[in-house]
Amino acid sequence: MNIRHLESADFDVISPVVDEWWGGRAVRGLLPRLFFEHFRPTSFVIEEGRELLGFLVGFRSQSDPTVGYVHFIGVHPGARAKGFGRLLYQHFFAAATRLGCTEVRAVTSPVNESSIRFHRALGFHLLPGNGDVNGHPVCLDHDGPGRHHVLFSKQLAGEIKR
Amino acid sequence: MNIRHLESADFDVISPVVDEWWGGRAVRGLLPRLFFEHFRPTSFVIEEGRELLGFLVGFRSQSDPTVGYVHFIGVHPGARAKGFGRLLYQHFFAAATRLGCTEVRAVTSPVNESSIRFHRALGFHLLPGNGDVNGHPVCLDHDGPGRHHVLFSKQLAGEIKR
Repeated sequence: MNIRHLESADFDVISPVVDEWWGGRAVRGLLPRLFFEHFRPTSFVIEEGRELLGFLVGFRSQSDPTVGYVHFIGVHPGARAKGFGRLLYQHFFAAATRLGCTEVRAVTSPVNESSIRFHRALGFHLLPGNGDVNGHPVCLDHDGPGRHHVLFSKQLAGEIKR
Repeated sequence: MNIRHLESADFDVISPVVDEWWGGRAVRGLLPRLFFEHFRPTSFVIEEGRELLGFLVGFRSQSDPTVGYVHFIGVHPGARAKGFGRLLYQHFFAAATRLGCTEVRAVTSPVNESSIRFHRALGFHLLPGNGDVNGHPVCLDHDGPGRHHVLFSKQLAGEIKR
């Protein structure tokens, strides 16, 4: 098993499979090639041999350089529950910390219970929202009509102190 | 007329109108809220009174910090041919130059002749591709099957010397 930075060429491998990895949801359009080209220092893939088993696309906010943002994290359906998602996030936390970030943010859909459990287990908390879906605080219409999101935040400084 | 940096709240104004501004093309999904939140130093809007007439979303590449990338630029259909697009790009060129960028890149669809003319007039040239559409060099399947793109590049250093 090998973890390395994301490359532009990974687009051609990852883009065709993301909808399937997301259980049939149409997420491919949210991952244009620019995310593979311009955020390499904070983006990673996990491979085993020549097979790509997981990836994380994240960047440092340019509005607030103390914030790291994770846009996508995905693991091959046949390689779940092996800690690959946690490993990808650990690499992102380390890279973001080296760049001076003290907080990491991410969002997910309120129906994605496994993503909410996963982020909580990693030390993220849910930010207050202006609505409630499935018992979770959400930011209503966060990415357009009906596209409510749970907002995650995790302090990196606190993590280091523990 | 006023030009200022893009704000997160602009998402709620811009997102509902982009498909209409793009002549009915479904481009809204390519502009999630993250682009309004995290790339403020290199992203701008033009307003007249309380009306938003144009916007540009761009960032500095984190893989190659000498490169600036423009993801979206749009002008209200009723406010075209007034130089607003050029003004937005001039603000981006200045911001990118201050950050140390020496090149700006962008992509467009090969069927978008007005975008190709506009970028050429601003000093962009078309990069070589691996295909040809409408007589333009394109990178085939650049953002997925059938999503061919024309790739633009402009040197900022050369611009300053002229």
